[in-house]
Amino acid sequence: MTSRLSAHLISHNPALWNRLRSFYDGRSVMITGGLGFIGSNLAIVLAEMNARIMLVDSLIPEYGGNRFNIEPIAGKVEVNISDVRDRSSMNMLVQGRDLIFNLAGTLSHVDSMKDPFTDLEINCVSQLSILESCRKYNPAVKLVFAGTRGQYGRTGSDPVSEKHLMRPVDVNGINNIAGESYHLLYNDVYGIKACSLRLTNTFGPRHQMNHHRQGVLNWFLRQLIDGDKIRLYGTGDQVRDTNYVSDVVEAFLIAMADDRTDGEVYNLGGEPISLRQFVEMAVEVNGGGDYEIVPFPADAKQIEIGDYRADYSKFNELTGWKPEVSLKEGIARTLDYYREYREYYWGSRPSERPRRMPVGA
Amino acid sequence: MTSRLSAHLISHNPALWNRLRSFYDGRSVMITGGLGFIGSNLAIVLAEMNARIMLVDSLIPEYGGNRFNIEPIAGKVEVNISDVRDRSSMNMLVQGRDLIFNLAGTLSHVDSMKDPFTDLEINCVSQLSILESCRKYNPAVKLVFAGTRGQYGRTGSDPVSEKHLMRPVDVNGINNIAGESYHLLYNDVYGIKACSLRLTNTFGPRHQMNHHRQGVLNWFLRQLIDGDKIRLYGTGDQVRDTNYVSDVVEAFLIAMADDRTDGEVYNLGGEPISLRQFVEMAVEVNGGGDYEIVPFPADAKQIEIGDYRADYSKFNELTGWKPEVSLKEGIARTLDYYREYREYYWGSRPSERPRRMPVGA
Repeated sequence: MTSRLSAHLISHNPALWNRLRSFYDGRSVMITGGLGFIGSNLAIVLAEMNARIMLVDSLIPEYGGNRFNIEPIAGKVEVNISDVRDRSSMNMLVQGRDLIFNLAGTLSHVDSMKDPFTDLEINCVSQLSILESCRKYNPAVKLVFAGTRGQYGRTGSDPVSEKHLMRPVDVNGINNIAGESYHLLYNDVYGIKACSLRLTNTFGPRHQMNHHRQGVLNWFLRQLIDGDKIRLYGTGDQVRDTNYVSDVVEAFLIAMADDRTDGEVYNLGGEPISLRQFVEMAVEVNGGGDYEIVPFPADAKQIEIGDYRADYSKFNELTGWKPEVSLKEGIARTLDYYREYREYYWGSRPSERPRRMPVGA
Repeated sequence: MTSRLSAHLISHNPALWNRLRSFYDGRSVMITGGLGFIGSNLAIVLAEMNARIMLVDSLIPEYGGNRFNIEPIAGKVEVNISDVRDRSSMNMLVQGRDLIFNLAGTLSHVDSMKDPFTDLEINCVSQLSILESCRKYNPAVKLVFAGTRGQYGRTGSDPVSEKHLMRPVDVNGINNIAGESYHLLYNDVYGIKACSLRLTNTFGPRHQMNHHRQGVLNWFLRQLIDGDKIRLYGTGDQVRDTNYVSDVVEAFLIAMADDRTDGEVYNLGGEPISLRQFVEMAVEVNGGGDYEIVPFPADAKQIEIGDYRADYSKFNELTGWKPEVSLKEGIARTLDYYREYREYYWGSRPSERPRRMPVGA
């Protein structure tokens, strides 16, 4: 059975699908953070491409991992519960892998200020540790790292290319710069092939829905489903660049399969929109809902970045990648998914099996 | 008695000396890495400006700390042996300080590749730790951080300004970016005043002389004193920008005393010269010596940066700072110093007192 992700990829670009399928067919692929938002969506497509998949995840409650995320491919993938901070596990797990999507990490701006050392351990120390494991036990691997627009900090209103100086406004951004830089260094010095995609605000199915500290777009959609009033900080006019998750998955698949990306960094991006406009569009798609403007809490205000627009022309010009899913369609799919499987994300029965398999998601 | 450092500062710019002296007079100043190369030279001048000085140093043998470095001011400064990785010590030590020169760190490119986690602990984790200590126990402090040109990586032949993208070629460079970035972040978010000076190749008295992995210029001078043949890797044509230590000390004193530096980063720089030309000049000043060209060892070749020239106009235009000591004069002073006190740097009697006090250094 074909997931909606794969069906979309097949239909909008069958030649690309065939090329990627033949690249991943039979390959041994590891995904750190594999039970998380992007990792699980990626795993579902990779399973349909007949890759041999190992998902590594710590399942730390506050983070993004959720066993239900891989329900459509349960039994078709290996799952190893361990923390990327655990060096000896990583030494074992990297062995024999052809490809590693290195997605484990925390993305909370506010949390990184409250507990900067944990953020440092996960986003900085662990990345170095994974690369050291590869250097010692699997130097022929290729890695793709998930960077973030948080590395840039406050950028103003102009589109931001990879040449923009980075000055993060939170500890998380600094640690992600280090984590990304280790990948590029190990590429340059040791020939361990690696590149990085810098993600902007990504939303869609399989994102955690328990708190708003990672991924505010999904949080807005939960408020709509719950019938709660959405709270927008400040004026709501702050612009974010947005991507639907299937477009991001496609970008990872493309970046990994292309040798020309080795040692390079690429922005992803899509539709820039103010948070207020996003919410208004979501209310329209949802057929109802309400929002209010509230003052910034002090801790969020200190690290608010203002507007962000991505210039993703470098990746587009190299690979042809561009977002294919409109914001409206992405919002509709996300609302559909969580309406159907809500109980596995913020319901009361997280450990039960679903009413039916979520293959259409 | 006035050190040569201070005498020079007084003579070349008495107005600046008076302004700095009145700024530092009676201030409580902490220097991490205070028994090291730049820290100890800085402490000697600060003592003459009547600052109240606490030097913090781990005295780890392979690093730069040496008790003899502060012989001219022994008894006039407090010394606390502890490691910047020791969070509870730092929590105590930062309290009550007006100013912190944050110079503790390792600078070995090769060592950082062989033992990346130690480099990360010292240059990245510890910096965050010191800033957290300041946030909790002394948020009114100002810090000046010692960054490095190693943060830029390979830059080509054009002068490098602070707007140049950073892509380090070793783990040390990445960790120094993170360490510096935490300072800027805590400045921006918490109002803990901090700035960074990015140092280029600095040489002069009080540098460790036991190995060449930190500070190749001083190492060349030791070879001359020992009558050994200097070994230049590659062609010897690689260009480095150079500063004599007293100019760097002056830059730190100026940066700390100027509110306009808060939240900013500045390159230092001086006379760009090829390593071969530096050695030829040193042979001339020394009145003898020899060198040979040898192939790069593999580990050094991988992380060799090629040419580096600093554009230090940002700091010059703000403060008027520029290097005052010529390369020839710096080489002569350095040779004089180590000829006189050699035994305390690579002699056989490191714990003995000097024949006379090195106040002229």
